Amino acid sequence: MTERRTEILEAALGLFSKKGYHDTSMQDLGEALGLQRGSLYTHIRSKEELLLAIVKRGAEEFLKALLPVEDMEAPAPERLREAMRRHIGVVARNLEAATVFFHEWRFLPETARQDVLKDRDRYEGVFRSILDDGIREGTLRPHDTRLSATLALSAGNWLYQWYDPKGRLTADEIADRFSNFILEGISRGREGAA
Amino acid sequence: MTERRTEILEAALGLFSKKGYHDTSMQDLGEALGLQRGSLYTHIRSKEELLLAIVKRGAEEFLKALLPVEDMEAPAPERLREAMRRHIGVVARNLEAATVFFHEWRFLPETARQDVLKDRDRYEGVFRSILDDGIREGTLRPHDTRLSATLALSAGNWLYQWYDPKGRLTADEIADRFSNFILEGISRGREGAA
Repeated sequence: MTERRTEILEAALGLFSKKGYHDTSMQDLGEALGLQRGSLYTHIRSKEELLLAIVKRGAEEFLKALLPVEDMEAPAPERLREAMRRHIGVVARNLEAATVFFHEWRFLPETARQDVLKDRDRYEGVFRSILDDGIREGTLRPHDTRLSATLALSAGNWLYQWYDPKGRLTADEIADRFSNFILEGISRGREGAA
Repeated sequence: MTERRTEILEAALGLFSKKGYHDTSMQDLGEALGLQRGSLYTHIRSKEELLLAIVKRGAEEFLKALLPVEDMEAPAPERLREAMRRHIGVVARNLEAATVFFHEWRFLPETARQDVLKDRDRYEGVFRSILDDGIREGTLRPHDTRLSATLALSAGNWLYQWYDPKGRLTADEIADRFSNFILEGISRGREGAA
């Protein structure tokens, strides 16, 4: 990718996350970059192309961070902790991109939307397989792993709405606490377990 | 509220959730309702007024559902389960409104935004106070209740992105499983607890 193109992508990311994809015009983008619209079009074909690039880069970043955990040689609880750290790390380091990724992917053209859904399935699949491994190896109790994977991912995803890099906890601390809650629960004993 | 105004609000909700607030024009709204723009303006002042009404109604619905749980006479784990059912119930019954509420509240004028944040704090406060009660009464172990409240709310909020009313689980079943995970954890025993 050329340097200019990277610059344009970063500017688009900032605008899409603040104003939303639809409300950002090529004019806005040109102004943010100090470029004429015509000169913008020598680098990119359309606004849609930019959204596509942003969402694709987001999906890749998530997968790149998570996939190594699939092959980690460690008990499932430890791998889950590591997966949470990585997942939450990506969101926390890319709050603007996460906003665009989570809000605007629906507006991609159909084939691109399907690609995102496929990447998302693959990603959730890593969480599920860790949890299923845990049941098999006996470190986790039998339960609905599709839903516990959703719980773990929801906690990480929602971070983009509230996480403050200057807040009281680091991203890793948040990830570790969430992992503790999900693995060990918050109730005093298991006597009352349903 | 007049019947016509309710109709306009419903149409705005549908359009905002599909296209986003910014990309919905008064023209779109008029077309969806079979009304001229001029006649729209006899019922509402602006698009912003509609967004405000939708977000306010959303906040009220959430609070109305949850507040009774604050005064419920029952151990904290049971109240948490009930709070999760109610929270998830509101999201599941109002998927379009939840999308608008979660995505578009940022675009409200400053005072309205502050009101939403206040309602949100109040809402989270109910979850936190249930969890703090649990620690005091000894049904929950001492832990960071601000973060466990966030975990519970994140799981419920994120539902708007994936919940399918025709899916394999009802909203109540999802709520109960999430509550189980958070209360009891998914690991086999507590021996490995960090």
